[in-house]
Amino acid sequence: MKIIIIGGVATGPKTAAVLARRTNEADITIFQKESQVSYASCGLPYFASGDINQFEALIQTSYGIPRDADFFARTKGVKVVTETEIISIDRKNKCVKARNLKNGEESRQAYDRLVLATGANPVRPPFPVPGADNIRSFTRPDDFRHFRRTAEQGKIGRAAIIGGGFIGCEMAEAVAGLWGIETILIEKENQLLPYILDTEMSAIAEREMTRQGITLHLGKSVQNIEICPDGSVKIDFGGTSATADYVLLCLGVRPEVGLAREAGLEMGETGAIKVNSYLQTSDPDIYAGGDCVESYNMVSGSQFYIPMGSLANRHGRVIAENIAGNRTEFKGAVGAFLVKIFDINVGAAGLSEQAALKAGLHPLSVWGSFVDKPDYYPESKSFSLKMIYEDGSGRLLGLQAAGQGDICRRIDVYSSHLSGGKNLSDLLDFEHGYAPPYAEALDPLHQLAGLALAQERGLEIIPPRNETTAFWLDVREKEEIASTPLPFADEGMIRIPLNDLRFRLEEIPRGKRINIICRRGPRAYQAAVILRQAGFSDVAILGGGIQALRD
Amino acid sequence: MKIIIIGGVATGPKTAAVLARRTNEADITIFQKESQVSYASCGLPYFASGDINQFEALIQTSYGIPRDADFFARTKGVKVVTETEIISIDRKNKCVKARNLKNGEESRQAYDRLVLATGANPVRPPFPVPGADNIRSFTRPDDFRHFRRTAEQGKIGRAAIIGGGFIGCEMAEAVAGLWGIETILIEKENQLLPYILDTEMSAIAEREMTRQGITLHLGKSVQNIEICPDGSVKIDFGGTSATADYVLLCLGVRPEVGLAREAGLEMGETGAIKVNSYLQTSDPDIYAGGDCVESYNMVSGSQFYIPMGSLANRHGRVIAENIAGNRTEFKGAVGAFLVKIFDINVGAAGLSEQAALKAGLHPLSVWGSFVDKPDYYPESKSFSLKMIYEDGSGRLLGLQAAGQGDICRRIDVYSSHLSGGKNLSDLLDFEHGYAPPYAEALDPLHQLAGLALAQERGLEIIPPRNETTAFWLDVREKEEIASTPLPFADEGMIRIPLNDLRFRLEEIPRGKRINIICRRGPRAYQAAVILRQAGFSDVAILGGGIQALRD
Repeated sequence: MKIIIIGGVATGPKTAAVLARRTNEADITIFQKESQVSYASCGLPYFASGDINQFEALIQTSYGIPRDADFFARTKGVKVVTETEIISIDRKNKCVKARNLKNGEESRQAYDRLVLATGANPVRPPFPVPGADNIRSFTRPDDFRHFRRTAEQGKIGRAAIIGGGFIGCEMAEAVAGLWGIETILIEKENQLLPYILDTEMSAIAEREMTRQGITLHLGKSVQNIEICPDGSVKIDFGGTSATADYVLLCLGVRPEVGLAREAGLEMGETGAIKVNSYLQTSDPDIYAGGDCVESYNMVSGSQFYIPMGSLANRHGRVIAENIAGNRTEFKGAVGAFLVKIFDINVGAAGLSEQAALKAGLHPLSVWGSFVDKPDYYPESKSFSLKMIYEDGSGRLLGLQAAGQGDICRRIDVYSSHLSGGKNLSDLLDFEHGYAPPYAEALDPLHQLAGLALAQERGLEIIPPRNETTAFWLDVREKEEIASTPLPFADEGMIRIPLNDLRFRLEEIPRGKRINIICRRGPRAYQAAVILRQAGFSDVAILGGGIQALRD
Repeated sequence: MKIIIIGGVATGPKTAAVLARRTNEADITIFQKESQVSYASCGLPYFASGDINQFEALIQTSYGIPRDADFFARTKGVKVVTETEIISIDRKNKCVKARNLKNGEESRQAYDRLVLATGANPVRPPFPVPGADNIRSFTRPDDFRHFRRTAEQGKIGRAAIIGGGFIGCEMAEAVAGLWGIETILIEKENQLLPYILDTEMSAIAEREMTRQGITLHLGKSVQNIEICPDGSVKIDFGGTSATADYVLLCLGVRPEVGLAREAGLEMGETGAIKVNSYLQTSDPDIYAGGDCVESYNMVSGSQFYIPMGSLANRHGRVIAENIAGNRTEFKGAVGAFLVKIFDINVGAAGLSEQAALKAGLHPLSVWGSFVDKPDYYPESKSFSLKMIYEDGSGRLLGLQAAGQGDICRRIDVYSSHLSGGKNLSDLLDFEHGYAPPYAEALDPLHQLAGLALAQERGLEIIPPRNETTAFWLDVREKEEIASTPLPFADEGMIRIPLNDLRFRLEEIPRGKRINIICRRGPRAYQAAVILRQAGFSDVAILGGGIQALRD
């Protein structure tokens, strides 16, 4: 059986390696346009930053052997043809036309099964971009190598990043954090990581960027980019302009579907290749996976486009099993993400509140601020969570996390529950690994689920946003208020420590909406219980407390 | 409604706090024998070590208010009576008899619902123990405070820990790591953390203990302990003896069930109090939770005793909901653990292989060694995993983890899958949060599940134990072999790097059992595929590779 795989990063090599282990009989060839295959593309920003010293680390095995054509032939029994582009697919005759990019020679290659792992390309900017070496989309190794070389030569005093998605955020740390370059970041939406985080959670990422010296221009569209006589670049955006020595276009990626489309394969609603749960395209002899396909969203029930290295690798295994005759499904994705932004960890799984609304669901949200170890244990670090669930059913819809603390296990656990269609009470049943060096006795997910059930019983929770007009009750201790004042106006605010609240109820005005705040949320919740039991009816708490406004 | 709660740590205060939030009408009283309530008992070893400087940190809220009777009255609306012991329960008349330990006065207290949160006591040693201040069971605050005070005074040159369970391991770090005391640890089983880890995984903890200077005496029973004329202690064990200035008895705990038994409540098969899924005892007006009850093991289907602070807190919430009229189940536990042993993290969820065999199941195991970030990313740390699953069905049974890397998220995710009765293919479908600073593109759990499926297809995997008699094929690179030789004899061993294996097959003897080893496992797996495809039939790989023998 002859297998042709188009694309040499993630899905392609994974498909080839697994399939070659399953069968002795497959003749497997990977075609790759670039000269390198199987490089760790997700690691490129960390090479750009200098965190990873040698580029070779990204193209070698952990034991120092380059993952090149020779390696694939010797170790995996797979043929790799680089610098060769597949220019068309002849489905009727089951063959592809290949063009050698070095000498222009063309050849026909027959296949029994074809695998499209064509990946993604940078989104085309909606503004004119002059051709210049110091204006680049950041997707291919050469872009990152060029930046690193230029930065090492000290030629970048000022940089501009256009786009505040994953790569934009990762490159911001690479550019400003490690090379100390004066950096601005321009994003057309009103927030970083749009579509992934809701604004009160992206605010945590934005504060960290600002703390680290990045100048953010949010809600600003770029109109024009031009080269100045001195070689620097002038960027016009949102009615103003800035100059930079280097411009990083980080506008996201779109699936590379040209070959598939020309071959008449069915496209999905997102513009990526449509595949069934066995990762077959509309032609059952042609499989597709990785950044060129769309995925079934297990939370919303619709298709979405989620180009992630982790899914691309899992696709490879599923395609290989199916070609080998072991029927295996890829059931879909929930959208689990992690991204490091300087000293904070940011992550999400499932739908944001905005995405849930768009999907026609009825989301409710709760917020909390937590520590990743008990407060009494050394080096405990804080983080904030927002959880989204369905009104009525309590079905879990999404989790967003940001802060210095360990968010990874919460994202992973929540993701596991999401893909099983679990609800709030399932989350309360979750058994976490506990010991003081690692966790609190109740996991943050237990605490959030408990808060959601309190909300169902009538507790009102407002999002962690600065609110200057409301009437606030601060139930923290005097020393805390002195050391950490509220970041918004405190005109007419009342301060009564929780421990005194039952005995000072007469100080609180009746018939007025009372918003309660504490450091992280639990005291405000307890205060709300005390007030409601004392007959105050219009009471709300600030989700996540003052910590969520400071993380 | 009058609620009496017996026991003031974890389950008791949690029940009281949740119930007081649910209803304005409950009259809730906690009775506690000791003078302190609601202290963080799991934090005591870290106070003993000095990691936690002030004892007060363990009895205060995170905002500095002591969790005493006054706090519970003011903040929670709950009455706490300390230094008072409940000496009997009169179920017919629904009241208890309380004795004030300060003045000996006795009183009757009526209840509508009674909650037993009586906790656990140290296991009685099976050898004579003379009464002396420097020979102590480590369960109550006074024990840890006494050790800390004595250590601070420089009075402990040599210490002996008897028992290698959780507290024994935690105290070993406290004693030797932070106070630099010459320390021996005596454990009657042949391993540390018996019943929780299988021996090849506990070996990782044992190597770390030894590296850190602890002298381990495993498989040795203590026969006698006596005080020497100079005040030091002589311990006779396993045919030898040792002296120490301080002896820590860490033999585990057993449930405190005296009151419940005298009241005629039904006991479970483990000797702890039997409760139904609503945490009711055999008397429906009496609830019980925390370290005095047994739990349903969701993996084995039988009852087990698992005294954990995390479960105790979750029990409290469930009891409170049920008393408040919100029927809520506690569905059982899988046994998720974490314990820090010097610089390594150790954890488990579900059944060990030994426990699975005892439960009458048919377990199979796989092993792997991993890094918690890609090798190319700075500061990636290694760890080893053992996964146990059911032969035939592929149902997940257990996971064990040990090493410097981040094991927590794997334990939590595996625990989530265990409680849902999931199998290997569900684990392959797990979507983890991925970015190079946090994870590899394929999670270790994906890799282990893939290895288990390979085992189902005939790959033979042997446990990571030193094997001197087998015939070994080492497929690592020359440089790796030079820097990290195998820890066992290499007589007659063959060394062929994986990349050369296809071309040097004639060097490998036919008709002989070939055991393949590499650094972490994947290369040995690939080598086994190459050999089997070349007609070698008796081939096995060392699970986890040389890393699992060194972690």
